[in-house]
Amino acid sequence: MQINEHFANLHESYLFARVAERVREYEQEHNARAIRLSIGDVTRPLAPCVIRAMHGAVDDLSRAETFRGYGPDATSYAYDFLLSAIQNHYKKRGVALSFGEIFVSDGAKSDLGNLLDLFSVEKVLLPDPVYPAYADANLLAGHKIIYAEGREENGFLPMPEEGKGADLIYLCSPNNPTGAVYSHAQLKRWVEFAGRHGAILLFDAAYEAYVTGNFPRSVYEVEGARECAIEVSSFSKAAGFTGVRCGYTVIPNELVRGGVRLSSLWKRRQACKFNGVSYVTQRGAAAAYSEEGERECGEILAYYRENARILKEGMNGCRLFSTGGVHSPYLWVKCPYGTGEQFFELLLSRCGVAVTPGGGFGAGGERYFRLTAFSSREDTAEAVKRITELLT
Amino acid sequence: MQINEHFANLHESYLFARVAERVREYEQEHNARAIRLSIGDVTRPLAPCVIRAMHGAVDDLSRAETFRGYGPDATSYAYDFLLSAIQNHYKKRGVALSFGEIFVSDGAKSDLGNLLDLFSVEKVLLPDPVYPAYADANLLAGHKIIYAEGREENGFLPMPEEGKGADLIYLCSPNNPTGAVYSHAQLKRWVEFAGRHGAILLFDAAYEAYVTGNFPRSVYEVEGARECAIEVSSFSKAAGFTGVRCGYTVIPNELVRGGVRLSSLWKRRQACKFNGVSYVTQRGAAAAYSEEGERECGEILAYYRENARILKEGMNGCRLFSTGGVHSPYLWVKCPYGTGEQFFELLLSRCGVAVTPGGGFGAGGERYFRLTAFSSREDTAEAVKRITELLT
Repeated sequence: MQINEHFANLHESYLFARVAERVREYEQEHNARAIRLSIGDVTRPLAPCVIRAMHGAVDDLSRAETFRGYGPDATSYAYDFLLSAIQNHYKKRGVALSFGEIFVSDGAKSDLGNLLDLFSVEKVLLPDPVYPAYADANLLAGHKIIYAEGREENGFLPMPEEGKGADLIYLCSPNNPTGAVYSHAQLKRWVEFAGRHGAILLFDAAYEAYVTGNFPRSVYEVEGARECAIEVSSFSKAAGFTGVRCGYTVIPNELVRGGVRLSSLWKRRQACKFNGVSYVTQRGAAAAYSEEGERECGEILAYYRENARILKEGMNGCRLFSTGGVHSPYLWVKCPYGTGEQFFELLLSRCGVAVTPGGGFGAGGERYFRLTAFSSREDTAEAVKRITELLT
Repeated sequence: MQINEHFANLHESYLFARVAERVREYEQEHNARAIRLSIGDVTRPLAPCVIRAMHGAVDDLSRAETFRGYGPDATSYAYDFLLSAIQNHYKKRGVALSFGEIFVSDGAKSDLGNLLDLFSVEKVLLPDPVYPAYADANLLAGHKIIYAEGREENGFLPMPEEGKGADLIYLCSPNNPTGAVYSHAQLKRWVEFAGRHGAILLFDAAYEAYVTGNFPRSVYEVEGARECAIEVSSFSKAAGFTGVRCGYTVIPNELVRGGVRLSSLWKRRQACKFNGVSYVTQRGAAAAYSEEGERECGEILAYYRENARILKEGMNGCRLFSTGGVHSPYLWVKCPYGTGEQFFELLLSRCGVAVTPGGGFGAGGERYFRLTAFSSREDTAEAVKRITELLT
């Protein structure tokens, strides 16, 4: 038995696991708690209506008359109440989806990796910098990766270049880590490019809840996307579900390759290697997308937005160039000297503040670090204070 | 972009989805509810201590001080309280596991499929008949499948044959669908065979809670298994978690290929394409494996065992040969004439009882059908009454 040789192409551990381990080491050495502005993990409690829905679901499981086992086969184990909530969520921005186009999962990361099962891919195009799980999943599958460079000069928004195509093109907007968000016109160019080359866009909308103003929150707001794009989204950042686990993937009926609907392939893949999301989680997710949930989650997002504003103001005060923090819970900060790795060590050892070194998101991130707005207000303010004292 | 050509080798839909669809059709045509003895889905409410633990976990998520986001990176997002409960579960049968050898997931089906990411497999050996997800996942990956025949003559317990080896060997004991369970001596022969040929055993212990008497519940009760076996198990059938979603995979530290611990590869795979199980689910699972949970879940198992006894008695009364129903919630029934498909249609159309046609589990199941003991007592008794009236 041979092991999958492609593991050799991966870092020994995943970016956020490496960072977390280094932070734990620091804490043990110094017998002190670090302020974590590193991994994008939420800290605010769930919205009250979500909590109520989850309690209600647990109660349902306590009585034979209301007990639920496996979810419905016909919809890849998702309940109509959740599909309906997601459908309604899209309707608000003018996107019409049918139940058969929506697939509920335990999270965007799972789907972004597992979707590769559908294809025989030679080459993928990834933005640089971007969420590292894309590259990892493709390296593991032995795919050739090429990069579209997001740099200060193009506002961290790489655009398609003729002659630089791929079977599969990942886009993340708002981008993790830079917070850059594509306009309608920019996204249209990507859709047209994919359409022209028969490529598939894998659009990661995990941060769509942070979009403000007239930017697309879904790739399907762009004409032609239903023929070429898969969208993956999540309740993790929109409703604080990092520990509750719920995401979803949209595959429009028009997305056909080799005469086959990709939605039917994905349904078949999920029937073979997946068994659905917890009923309790599904009830909570549906509540998060209700009117009440949207209002309550909106208050939580406002809390994080204010944290982002404090971080932005703080970095400005230190005369550090930064992007993000507006359509995104992340601030992407340029190191005044040295590398993101060096700043990671500096800020950890001198301020007790954990950040994420930018190089972990791609070569274009070497001289940056990422701050997350997901901490508490107190920790956010304290981190800014300490960094300011160090750098000014 | 090419699609994965191996989808063409799969049935268009998954066995249990096909059956469910046919049953829904019947119900619509006849405007009547069918009694479902088909898919192995539980119906009893969760144990009271599991319900309490899940409510408590939801409450934790409602307060900032007790809120939990992503699970711990170091243990593939599983909490120590659950790892400890699983560790203790194994300890009771004399199997010592460390936390780093236990990986918690959203279910056995996911793990059984996703584990293929670790290997470069040429050939796999599957029992026939067996749970159809094994074959589906391997067909999807383009692997060559050979079968070890479980037939009436060998008590549905295929044994290794020299010259019939494979990279990966799946075993399911107690077997789904036949309910056959390997003895310690039989399992030892498989472990020795795998050891001799450098093969890996993928041991599916999803039904271990149903084992009675002196049969192994874990492959690690057999000497040498730590060098060659991965075990996958689940809370679905042991604690009624089909709708709550929790399973786990054990990869011992001694399981090394190409100089690499398979546990470290799996940890890396999960970091790349998975983000852990709901905190609420993890709390519920830990409660199910507590002393109290074991007692309460034991009462639920006793309820299903009594259903199995009623089914067995009923089939005896109809003079139908059957196996299972003792170490297993399933009865494997031989058709007195015709095929399992024909009996599926006959029992559905004449009795309004849904069963699973045996051919869906492999060629060796063509002349059988499977009954599950997971229905209510009333439905079980009513189904037996109707089948008896039809066949006697």
